[in-house]
Order: sequence, then structure tokens, then C-alpha cells
Amino acid sequence: MPNEILNEISHRRYNPLRDTWVLVSPHRTKRPWQGQQESPGVIDLPQYDEKCYLCPKNKRASGDSNPDYTDCYAFVNDFSAVKEVQDDQDYKPDGAGPAGIEAELLQAKPERGKCYVLTFSRRHDLTLADMSAEEIRKVVKMWTDIYISHLSPKSPLAGLRRTIFTPPQSPSNGGKAQPEQYRHMQIFENKGAAMGCSNPHPHGQIWTQTNVPEEPGSELLNLMKYKKEKGRHMLVDYAALEIMKEERVVYQNNSFLVLCPWWATWPFEVMLLPKRHIRALVDLDDTEQAELASCIAEITRRYDNLFETSFPYSMGIHQAPLEGPEDEIESSSLHVHFYPPLLRSATVRKFLVGYEMLAEPQRDITPEQAASRLRDCGGELYRKKLK
Amino acid sequence: MPNEILNEISHRRYNPLRDTWVLVSPHRTKRPWQGQQESPGVIDLPQYDEKCYLCPKNKRASGDSNPDYTDCYAFVNDFSAVKEVQDDQDYKPDGAGPAGIEAELLQAKPERGKCYVLTFSRRHDLTLADMSAEEIRKVVKMWTDIYISHLSPKSPLAGLRRTIFTPPQSPSNGGKAQPEQYRHMQIFENKGAAMGCSNPHPHGQIWTQTNVPEEPGSELLNLMKYKKEKGRHMLVDYAALEIMKEERVVYQNNSFLVLCPWWATWPFEVMLLPKRHIRALVDLDDTEQAELASCIAEITRRYDNLFETSFPYSMGIHQAPLEGPEDEIESSSLHVHFYPPLLRSATVRKFLVGYEMLAEPQRDITPEQAASRLRDCGGELYRKKLK
Ligand SMILES: O=P(O)(O)O[C@H]1O[C@H](CO)[C@@H](O)[C@H](O)[C@H]1O
Ligand SMILES: O=P(O)(O)O[C@H]1O[C@H](CO)[C@@H](O)[C@H](O)[C@H]1O
Repeated sequence: MPNEILNEISHRRYNPLRDTWVLVSPHRTKRPWQGQQESPGVIDLPQYDEKCYLCPKNKRASGDSNPDYTDCYAFVNDFSAVKEVQDDQDYKPDGAGPAGIEAELLQAKPERGKCYVLTFSRRHDLTLADMSAEEIRKVVKMWTDIYISHLSPKSPLAGLRRTIFTPPQSPSNGGKAQPEQYRHMQIFENKGAAMGCSNPHPHGQIWTQTNVPEEPGSELLNLMKYKKEKGRHMLVDYAALEIMKEERVVYQNNSFLVLCPWWATWPFEVMLLPKRHIRALVDLDDTEQAELASCIAEITRRYDNLFETSFPYSMGIHQAPLEGPEDEIESSSLHVHFYPPLLRSATVRKFLVGYEMLAEPQRDITPEQAASRLRDCGGELYRKKLK
Repeated sequence: MPNEILNEISHRRYNPLRDTWVLVSPHRTKRPWQGQQESPGVIDLPQYDEKCYLCPKNKRASGDSNPDYTDCYAFVNDFSAVKEVQDDQDYKPDGAGPAGIEAELLQAKPERGKCYVLTFSRRHDLTLADMSAEEIRKVVKMWTDIYISHLSPKSPLAGLRRTIFTPPQSPSNGGKAQPEQYRHMQIFENKGAAMGCSNPHPHGQIWTQTNVPEEPGSELLNLMKYKKEKGRHMLVDYAALEIMKEERVVYQNNSFLVLCPWWATWPFEVMLLPKRHIRALVDLDDTEQAELASCIAEITRRYDNLFETSFPYSMGIHQAPLEGPEDEIESSSLHVHFYPPLLRSATVRKFLVGYEMLAEPQRDITPEQAASRLRDCGGELYRKKLK
């Protein structure tokens, strides 16, 4: 148990994965709330919606129609944020003013990539929380297949697992572009209107791009530094420590751990951690793949049970880059982040605004309090649907 | 003009103040939006609301009553996130597991401080956008007074401007605690329900604390590095460059500049920059103080005019720490950030969610497009009230 004092006093906690601090103010939950109310998550939906661009057989913005798919289905995002082919000479600053000022202060670089959308089920009315671990495992397999199909042939991860999966083509670029080797693949899900999701059909996204972006980039630096200094993996050490401490653990099985990290920012933020060192999805054996799916089932169900609502969140996977130096790939540690905004009820969220944007992240309840509440939310999904 | 290409292709832009990148996808605004709608900003409010804890003469949660104040009024936050006095021995990790793991992975430090609330007007129904530059100047003066009253007597900034202002006391700690010297003061405003503000009475907050938090801390590092390497101030160079380039400038007067920074994250994010090197509010002479107020009046009015709504935002001031080594204070550059969430209309915002939380900030319209629209929104406030 941490010193009781951490439940009482304001303090800052250190996040060794990002090398940053977060301000914790445990006494602050007593504050009354008269501000914005979220609309509670929509639960009553039809199994098929003819206006949904993700349901089987329906038409999408591109004019393409979805096949009559059964479980998961992946296609290239019709409104991709990065694209495979573009006319992208570097922006050349004209070097105005005192030598080099413009080149230094107005830097831009073209970014190419490919964005996919991936449905989790043919059913419009389900969420991961409604799905069985066995069904979620098909999603984990699809993530793994897409990851494998984008690995550099030179990566030590290439060839570990076979897949017959071919990444979907974008209709406009079809055939034209030589597929490029990308550096980073970001697998994520935005769930719920509060997290900017505009279609309740269960789905996630995958953005693949030429550079390693900020968050995984800074995690990678800190993981490599720890490995170099201690000869061990930070997240393996951390998982072992938390298993011993218990108080931040929400759920565990043989291969994985669900916990509220010591340095969590969002009220009910959790992290899924493998117990052994896993570089990327491709390292998981069949049992581990199934146990990762169980953890996703467990946490999404507990989230929904907590405030008896369809709990909004953004989640995503950090793992080894698709291509890069060997020590980067070997130091990488697969883990899954869940960032949910709700704080007090189905309609009252935590706002990370003024102080948080201008100074640093601040949280009200402690991660230990959050973990204890999520432990108590186990069992069946409160709205269990007949399937 | 930047190369036309930046309006067309996906690219990353560099933020030299934070040493981070942001992904820009200009073509992505074409995406349809069927997601969450914000409720438009409330405009019809009474001049006085008997249930508002910020209106003159009303009672607050602490039991104290506000005086019958005329312009601005500051008091200690009844639900402060940091406090002056607390029983804060450091948390001592018990060093479990392989030597030092716990000490390294579970770090916490107590944080003390003082939080103020500051009303901008006695009138419940106004916002900064409704107020004249002359009225806003009283707010700027109050910020300056509070900043001065917390400066370390050893700071080169102490004694530059006089004030007779004494910081308000917290009722519970009154007299008991020796006032401590804090390092950082964060002045900010959360405006609108979309930015977690729960009371429309015009007001801001000031959080003062023992450590320099993440955001100003990383800015300070980059400002010091630039100063050391080039012998000049980054933000003075940057202001000069943007005045020459014009395309990102929204408004300027003799002493200040309002611009959409090259590296802006939020759709209509702006920065207020002095044209000469200013370390902190205390450096501003009377004219500059008035011209800063004019810039705040200009940008808040343009924001409201843009979508004809009471435009939500978080804004805040970065400036020299209250205490610290001389090169930190001399390299500090006063500037004001505005982070507004709206993207397309009074009800459709930009969500910085999945990809943005897990990978890096991403924006849809370019800062040049945003600046051009804000330039076109000048003139009178669309809903001009009779005062
Ligand atoms: O202090 P307030 O106005 O009650 O609260 C608001 O601003 C704080 C500082 O940015 C945030 O921590 C809160 O989440 C937000 O709701
Ligand atoms: O791609 P979508 O689902 O249309 O959009 C959603 O996710 C994106 C990636 O996190 C964000 O950039 C958008 O702001 C959000 O609304």
C-alpha cells in the first residue's frame, strides 16, 4: 500500500514512459459540478442500419459497397488524414530575415501514409463490451494480420507469424503507387460521441505513416534508455512490481495485466500489459492472443458497468515500429492504453482544459481509488443482450 | 506566402517552443460530420444572478460573501487543486523488487500552492468579447498585481512596478502559514461549457505552485537553448518573421501581435506576442498594458463573430517564473495562448482524441486559412449589447 498520505495531499507523480509529471489533487472530487452534461451512450440501436456506411452491403462515401462480411472488415478510410501518393516536394523556406530564422522557425515536412477503418462486428448494435472474448479475438487477429502485412522484410519481426491477408487498396491509388515502407502503425478506437466518434457501429482505425509520431516516439526513447541502463525492460519490471503491489491491478490472467497506471491522467485510465517481454502483436502466441482478447473484454465490460452506460474512451496499441534500427525494435514493449473521459457518472466528464493545456495534466481521484472501483465492477455486463 | 503545396498535402510542422511536431491534413475538412453537436454558447443571461457564487454580494461555498465589488475581484478558490499548507512528508517508496525499481517507477512528490479565482466584471452577462479594451485593461492590471505580489524579492523583476495589492487569504489557513515562495504562476481562463467552465460569470483562475509544470517547463528549456545558441530571443525573432510574412497575422498594434502560429494545434488557435522582448507582465509599460488589452478585446470579438456564438476557449499566460536562476528569467518571453475547440460552426468542434492522444496532434485546416478567416471577422461584436 502506498503511504495513506497520497489519498489526502496534492502531489505530482512521475510517468517514466513519457518522462513527464502529472498533478494529483485527491481532495478535489468534493467540488460541486454545474457544468456541461454529456449525453449518455446510445444503447438502443438496430442490428442493421441501412444508413450506416459500416454495415454489410451498404454504400460508402467513395461509392464502393461493403461486402456481406461476417466478423471484421477492413477498408481504406475514405477521408484519410495521410495518403499514399501526393505531390510532396519539401516546403522550401526562403530564408528571410537574419540568416536561417525562417528555416528554423517555419519547418514543415511532407507526410505520407495509409489509413484504414476496421469494423469489429457485422452487427451495428454491439460494442466490444457486448462481444465475447472469442469474438474480440478475431479483432486481435485482424490487427495482427494488418501489422504483419506492413512489416519491413528486414525487421527481426518479419516472418514470425504467417498471414494470407493482403491490405485493402485505396480505390483512387489502386495499382498506381508502389507500396512504400512505413515506419509507424497506430491502431486505435474512438468510442462514443464524447470521444469524437460519429458512427456507433463498432469500429476502430489504423493510421500508418512515414514517421514515428510524438507519443510512441517519446515512449520509445524512454524504453531504450531504461533497457540500456538496466539491461531489463521497463514495462516487464513495472508489471512485476504492480502484481506484487496489487492495489492498482484491475484484472489479470496468465499472460496479461489490466491496471490503472501509477501516472494515469484520465480518471479511469488503464493500461494492458503483457507479463513477459512482447515487442509487438506478432510476438503473441495463440494463448496470449486469446488472453489479450479476454483482457479487452474484461475492461470494456467493467467500464460499462461502472456508470451503467456505454462508456466512451479512446484506446490504442503501442508496439514496435514497422521498420527501424534493431535496438528500437528489441526495446519496444507492446501495451494498450485506454483513455476514458468520464469522472463521476454517465454524464459528467473530466475536462483537461485551462490548467491542463497550459501547465500540466491534473487528476482528481487517485489511480488506486479508480482501480478499486473497476475491480468491484466485474461480472456480467449490466445490460446483457441476448445474441 | 508559403508554397501553395501546404494547402494541399499532408505534412508535419515543427513547434520550436515545445520541440514537438503536429500533423496537418488540409484536405480533411471535406469529411462529413454526423457526430456530437455542442450546445451553442449561452448569450441571454441576467446582469445579476442571485444563484451565482461570483456575483457581487453573493455567498460562496466557503460561507464567505463576496463584497459589492465594481470591476475585478480575486479570492482563494474554495476547491483549490493545490494548497498552502499540507501534511506532506515525501512519499517514501519501500524499494521492493530488484534494487531501486520501486523508487524509479513509483515516484511522487508533494506539491503546495495557492489557487485564486478572479472575476473580470461585476456583470454576470458579459464576456471579455463584450468588454471594452479599457475594461479589459483592469483585468490585465489585476493579473500584473497578483504576479508582482508573488515575485521572489530576489528576482530581477521585483521592484520594477509598485503595487499596493495584497493577495487574498484562504479562510482556513489565514495567519497560520508563513507565505511560501512559489516558482510558477499559471494565469488562465476556461470559457464556455465545452471547455469545462461551469459558471458563465466572466472569470479566470490563477494557480500558483512550488514547481514549474510540464508545458511552461519545456517552453523555458527551448527558449533558453535558443537564446544561448543565437544570442537572440526566439519569440522576438518569430514575431519579426511573422510581421514580414503577414499571412498568419490576425491583428497587430504598436506593441503586440495576434497570430495563428505556424505550429497551431487547435483549428483557430492564436498566440499574442509582444514585438519587443518582455519577460513578464511586470515589464509592460502603461501603453503596452493597454495594447495587450486591445489585442484581447480584438481576438475575443473576432472569435465570437466567426460563428456568431459565444466562442469557447481556454487561454493562459506564459511568462517568467516567480523565482529561479537569472538566465531562466532573462530568457523567458511573455506570450498568451488561446486554445479554442470549435472547427466548423457554433456546434461542431475538433476532437483531439484517438490518434491525437496516442500518436500526435492533428489538425484539418491550415493556420494560414484560420488566420485569413479571423482577419475577416473584425469590426463590431455581432451581438453588441447596450451597456
Ligand atoms: O476549476 P474549475 O473551473 O471548477 O474546473 C475546470 O478547470 C480546471 C482547471 O483547468 C480543470 O481541472 C477542471 O477539469 C475544469 O472543469
Ligand atoms: O476519423 P474520424 O472518426 O472521422 O474522426 C475522429 O478521429 C480522428 C482521429 O483520432 C480525429 O482526428 C477526429 O477529430 C475525430 O473526430
